[in-house]
Order: sequence, then C-alpha cells, then structure tokens
Amino acid sequence: MNFNIGPSRLYPTVAQHINNALKDEILSVSHRGGTFKEIYKNTVDNLRKLLSIPNGHEIFFLGSATEAMGILIENCCLEKSFHFVNGAFSRKLFELALELKKQPQKNEVEWGQGFEFKENVVPEEIELVCLTHNETSTGVMLDLKDIYKLREKYPNKLFALDITSSIPYADVDYQLIDYAFFSVQKGFGLPAGLGVIVVSKKALEKAEKIKDFGLNIGGFHNLLNLKKMGDEFQTVETPNMLNIYLLGKVCEDMLNYGIDGLRKETEEKSALVYEFFDLDKRLFVDDKKVRSPTTVVIKTDKNSSEIIEVLKKKNILISSGYGKLKNEQIRIPILPAIPMEDYKKLLGSW
Amino acid sequence: MNFNIGPSRLYPTVAQHINNALKDEILSVSHRGGTFKEIYKNTVDNLRKLLSIPNGHEIFFLGSATEAMGILIENCCLEKSFHFVNGAFSRKLFELALELKKQPQKNEVEWGQGFEFKENVVPEEIELVCLTHNETSTGVMLDLKDIYKLREKYPNKLFALDITSSIPYADVDYQLIDYAFFSVQKGFGLPAGLGVIVVSKKALEKAEKIKDFGLNIGGFHNLLNLKKMGDEFQTVETPNMLNIYLLGKVCEDMLNYGIDGLRKETEEKSALVYEFFDLDKRLFVDDKKVRSPTTVVIKTDKNSSEIIEVLKKKNILISSGYGKLKNEQIRIPILPAIPMEDYKKLLGSW
Repeated sequence: MNFNIGPSRLYPTVAQHINNALKDEILSVSHRGGTFKEIYKNTVDNLRKLLSIPNGHEIFFLGSATEAMGILIENCCLEKSFHFVNGAFSRKLFELALELKKQPQKNEVEWGQGFEFKENVVPEEIELVCLTHNETSTGVMLDLKDIYKLREKYPNKLFALDITSSIPYADVDYQLIDYAFFSVQKGFGLPAGLGVIVVSKKALEKAEKIKDFGLNIGGFHNLLNLKKMGDEFQTVETPNMLNIYLLGKVCEDMLNYGIDGLRKETEEKSALVYEFFDLDKRLFVDDKKVRSPTTVVIKTDKNSSEIIEVLKKKNILISSGYGKLKNEQIRIPILPAIPMEDYKKLLGSW
Repeated sequence: MNFNIGPSRLYPTVAQHINNALKDEILSVSHRGGTFKEIYKNTVDNLRKLLSIPNGHEIFFLGSATEAMGILIENCCLEKSFHFVNGAFSRKLFELALELKKQPQKNEVEWGQGFEFKENVVPEEIELVCLTHNETSTGVMLDLKDIYKLREKYPNKLFALDITSSIPYADVDYQLIDYAFFSVQKGFGLPAGLGVIVVSKKALEKAEKIKDFGLNIGGFHNLLNLKKMGDEFQTVETPNMLNIYLLGKVCEDMLNYGIDGLRKETEEKSALVYEFFDLDKRLFVDDKKVRSPTTVVIKTDKNSSEIIEVLKKKNILISSGYGKLKNEQIRIPILPAIPMEDYKKLLGSW
C-alpha cells in the first residue's frame, strides 16, 4: 500500500486510461492537429467544471508546479513581491524571486504555524502577494476565508496561491485569485510531469506591462505565449500529451463520482487519522484551525526511518518529514486515490 | 500505420515498458528517493553509452526541446548569438534570442538549402553559434564535418546544436559541441514531454559568468541548478519520471539491437523512399549532400491535404509540409520505430 506524499498513489482509473491512450494511438498524433486540440479542450473544460473555474480565468499547462513558480515571478511582478512563508515551499518561492532579481519581502513564521492576517500587513509598494494554501512540508493549511479577507484589503495587488497539495480538495474562489498553480501527482493521482496554472485577466495584463517595460518575462512559457497558443487549444512546445489527456479523464471520473463526495471523504479520512495520532499527542500542528485535511504530519517517538522500515516490511510505503524535520516526522497524504479502508489498515498496522 | 512526423509512432517496446512501470509502481515513488535516483542514473548511463557522450559532458532532463532553446539562450549567451537559419526551427531559436533581449545575428538561406560554411562567416564578437543539425521543417540535414570545421575556426565560441530530429541517427562528436538538445517523441519513439540537453564544462562556466554578471539565467531550470541536482541524480522539480524511465529502457533496447544497425537501417529506409519519389522529381531538397536521412520532404502534385485524406482512408497517417509549405508538401520521418516493410507498404499505397 502506497502512502507516499507525492508522487503519490495513482488514481484507480489511471492504468486503464493509459492503456486506452496506447490503444487509440493518441500519443502519436500531432500536437498541432485536431485530435490533440480536442483532448486539450476536453481537459480544460473538465477542470473548469470540476474546480468551478470562472470563464474569465485561463487554464494553462506547464511541466511542473516548480515551473509555475518561475513563470509567476517573471510575469506578475516587476519588482516587489510579498511572501507568507511558513515552510519549505513558500520559502522556495521567496528564494526564487531573489534568484530572478526581484525584491521580495516576507512575513515568516515557524514551521507548523499559520498566520495572523492582521491589518496593513502588506506594504503599499507590493505588486504581488504569494500564499501557499497547503504547506506540504508542515501540514498547515491556511483558511481560504482569511486569504479572501486579505485580498479584499488590497484590490490592486495581484494574489497568487500555491494549491499543489490542497487540490482538488480545496474549493477555491478563483475570482479572488490571480494565479493559482498546482501539479497533478498528488491530489489528481497522475504520473508526475504536468503543472497547471489558473490565471486572471489582471495577471495577463501585468505580464503585458512587464514586457512593454522591456523586461524579460521568460522565453517560451511566458503568459502571453501561453495565452496565444491556448486560445487555439494548443501549447507552445510539444507537450506532455499523455498527462494532459489523463488529467481530462481523471477530472471526468471525479465529476462522475462527485466532487462534494470526494471533499467530504477527505475530511472523514483526515479526521480518522488525526484522531488516532492525537491520542498519543503526536500531531505536529498545534492549532486545529490550520491542521491540513490533505497532509497529516505526525511527530515520531523514534527516528522516522525506523518506522518507515518497519512499515515497509508490512508492504506499506510512507514518507518522512520534510527537510530539517525529516528524521522526527512522518507525513501522511489524504488523497482521493486512497480509500478509507486503506487508512484504517495503515492505522491498524501502526 | 502511423508515419506522423512527431510526435511519432512509439518504439515497439514502449507499451510493455509503460505497463512494467505501472506494475512496479515506479510512478508513485519519491523523486528524491533511491528508486528514482537509480532510474535517473540508469537513463543517463544508457544515453551516454548509446550516443557516445563523453564523461566530461553533463546530461540533463527538461520538459521539451523548446524549453532547451530558452535555457540555451539565457545560460550560454550574455549578448550576442549567431544563428544559421534555414527553416522554421532554426528561425524559432533566433526569434527566441530576440524575445529574451539578446542581440542575435543570423546567416539565413532559403528553405530547403544548407550553408556554404565559408571562412570568417561568424563575427568576432559572437559568443554563441547555433546550428540546427536537421531542419524538421525542410528535410535538410547539415554535414557534421562542416560543423566541426567551423567549430575549429572558433575555439573560443560556444557551439549549440539542435539534434531534435536527427537523434539517435546522428553520430555527433559531443567533444566539439557545448550544448546539444533534443526531445524524445521522434527518434526515440517515446510519448512527448521530455527534453534532453548535453552540456559541456565550457557551457556551465558561461552560465556561471552570466549569473555573476548579475543577469537572469532563468528561475529553476538554469544550468547551475540542473548541475547541482543532477550531481545527486535528481531534478530540480518533480519531473516526468515515466518518460525518464522509458528513455532509459528504450536506450537499453537500442543498445541491445545495436546503434550501428539502427543507423544503417535509417540510411537504407531513407534511400528507398528518396529513390521512389526521385523518379517523379518530387524531392524538395535539391542538393543531395544535405538531403536528410531522417526527414524526407516530398513536393506534392496536388494539395497535400488531399493526399493525406486518401492515405487516411487506407489507414495510413502522414504529415503535411511545415508552415508556409503545408499545402504543397508531405514529410516522411525515417525512424527506428518504423520497420522497412512499413515504408514499402507506404510506397506501395502511394
């Protein structure tokens, strides 16, 4: 039983979809032809439906969420970004902004914590505010309502949201977010190698402005190129057609299953896991309000590698803590691909 | 029968390898763990062996050859690149350099032609010389010996070579090339979604210099990040693990089959196709010396779409000309994945 934090267990229908793709030879069609355009359109349509993405927002495909971070910084920030940093992935985006010669600022708290979104927390000169909805490194999920309230205070700034490890559980109001991004190897249970961004008109306008200003907004996957090609249901490059196809199919499966059910089950599964480990006071995130329903982080009583080894012998694969907390924590993803009974088996084997 | 120019027919072993990957659950392992590191190392080792890539050159994985173009320009050129342009893909790289705020120069000839590599053709101030070994848009393959001679004249410039549609047929002397790049959906017969670059020490040093100069060399897939992670048999992002795995496996298959045999067969298959269409004087490339053994371009006597439709009814898929030549040409790829007997069937159905 695979409980890896990501790449994670494949969604149960994926193998069948892959074999259909092979059988129908869709991997050998032109990325400029009608068959691929239909696949592209189908995936965009299904994603839009599944996640309630408004028509005014564009959906584009990239190679990874990491790539989405670079494109965000180059296309939505001329100089000054602001980062809410509470773990490794929010920090990575802050550091990337530095590497890309911007002048990022941050509000950084300890790992395992959320934020007090107090008034006037974001300086006047900031163009872009970056938040990580779910910190995969710590198991903290921010409250979307807090984020929306913050956003309301700063209607003229762009807001970006990393939803890599909260989607499709997260029921985001994309009208309030200018640039949301995720990859597909966690919540969607797909092979790795595809990033998705959901982009507002304001974000596209910002990219235009930065380009007109004479700055480099990236060579091939800049927002303007993505928009130009996306309008034709195409990508700039020859893309990972298999994953674009699979994402459309899995969205379809999730639509048929019902997104409300998937979300409710995520909460039920995480409640069970939290309850189990709370008995021994092993939960890393103290504040209940920000305990993630998609990423449960457990403090271990011995080196996590020992627990991982013991479970491996029982044919259970599970992930350690992240970075500096690697040896003292275990992380358990709560995913649509993993049924409740498997979580029960995991807890039974603990 | 699929004769698409790219994405092309899958190599015959691919479906089996994909099903092995599913069975062995390698798509749900950590991209930071031992299993993936072994896959990464295996693919690099097999590529190095198959293509005789010297140990001093690094091999890195990207999302596409298009991405490889952007990274080339940002990491290997501070200001001035020089481009031999004889078709759509060599032109694309030139235009990308403009978009990335460099000052590219070019030697441009008509589509269907190669170059007279005369003396002193590249100006003194040029840092980077870019050549497209095989122009997929026109069916012109440059003679590698001409390229090496040019290179010898300019030992202090960097040389980049697009080998997207000539590999693995092309027997490149990588010692003489600083940045070679390709994707896997043509000659390797894999699903699209993976680019590969082969990079010299000089190219890495150049990236370092440009970074020290204070310029943006790209956010996540710059050469220095790729090198840092590649040294650990890892990628910067969560990568397309399936394709990295498949590339290693198909290289293994090609090693077992024998690269010399594959190359000889490519020449035999293309000779057959060229001979057939030469009878009616339908070959687009006049100069025999630069007629591509991997991309045969045919002038059609009627609109190419009519021929494509007729063949489609016979269950044969084939590609039109490129861009402005779309309606008056057909392009036939000569690939390891397509056996000689299928080319005979194609010609028999013409």
